[in-house]
Amino acid sequence: MKLLQERILTDGRILGNNILKVDQFLNHQLDVELLSEIGKEFYEMFKDQNITKILTAEVSGIAIATMAGFHFKVPVLFAKKTESLNLDRETYEGNVYSYTKRKQFKIRVSKKYLHKEDRVLILDDFLANGEAIKGLEEIVTASGATLVASGVVIEKCFQEGGRKLRESGMDVRALASIQSIENGEIVFQK
Amino acid sequence: MKLLQERILTDGRILGNNILKVDQFLNHQLDVELLSEIGKEFYEMFKDQNITKILTAEVSGIAIATMAGFHFKVPVLFAKKTESLNLDRETYEGNVYSYTKRKQFKIRVSKKYLHKEDRVLILDDFLANGEAIKGLEEIVTASGATLVASGVVIEKCFQEGGRKLRESGMDVRALASIQSIENGEIVFQK
Repeated sequence: MKLLQERILTDGRILGNNILKVDQFLNHQLDVELLSEIGKEFYEMFKDQNITKILTAEVSGIAIATMAGFHFKVPVLFAKKTESLNLDRETYEGNVYSYTKRKQFKIRVSKKYLHKEDRVLILDDFLANGEAIKGLEEIVTASGATLVASGVVIEKCFQEGGRKLRESGMDVRALASIQSIENGEIVFQK
Repeated sequence: MKLLQERILTDGRILGNNILKVDQFLNHQLDVELLSEIGKEFYEMFKDQNITKILTAEVSGIAIATMAGFHFKVPVLFAKKTESLNLDRETYEGNVYSYTKRKQFKIRVSKKYLHKEDRVLILDDFLANGEAIKGLEEIVTASGATLVASGVVIEKCFQEGGRKLRESGMDVRALASIQSIENGEIVFQK
């Protein structure tokens, strides 16, 4: 997605050889018009797949999934990281390993909002190790729903999450695929 | 907002005399078309106020603020509850007391994304004790920006947050104002 690649080059900030900060438009401050274009792009990719629900994980997937849901005209469901009064006791759970915090945590959705008839599109902001998407896939599997595909805004192809998920048979799409971040330069995959 | 009141009566669930769960459409599963109508309603309220930025707090304000930002065509900024790699070191902070967890925590936004020229609209899902909005107001004050008003989707008028904020001089609007939740019945303020 050309608009997105240009924005990453203009407003993304690189820390070291690994971390790309896109908090100017994607996960702290939100450029909603760009998010709408991102949502439209996912819609164009999957509009013939009879998606009935978009699933994401809090926090940074929510705005992206919301704008995508606006174009798909289907409900969005976000998995919660913390136990909360707003969450039912009856939940489907997924496990996510956090490399930064070096521990496993659970994400949950209420059983009320995911059914075996659902055709689910998972969306998230980043794909690096693939842990969040694996946790969301666990939730879809537990519910008996069909996981149609996963879409991410930015894939760091130099980490192994995308490869592993695709080898497992998942349809995984990225709007911007970064091959390398070296010496302060972002190289997109062709 | 009639559409919202009807939806609360149809799909809200009452726990005890105090808790209204709206996780079917507002803060776990998201009815994006309803959220768009909510965003439009806020836009109609404040469209002449030269709003330049919408500010909310993670998690449950994000989807609402995103859809509002879509109608206002201004950036959305969400304050973070946790320290994270995605957050700059230079931040404006607000303090929020959590009644359920009985402790104070901080919310933060990067100084990069809030400036003294900004005219800010705070948005959130619920107003009960007013703690989240007070924390967000602290952030706006620290940045030197102008706080134009605060909008919430649902105000629990039987808790004191709204009264206190209005007494302090803040313009606070709610799309659905609940006067009481008693014996399983929701009474809206007239």
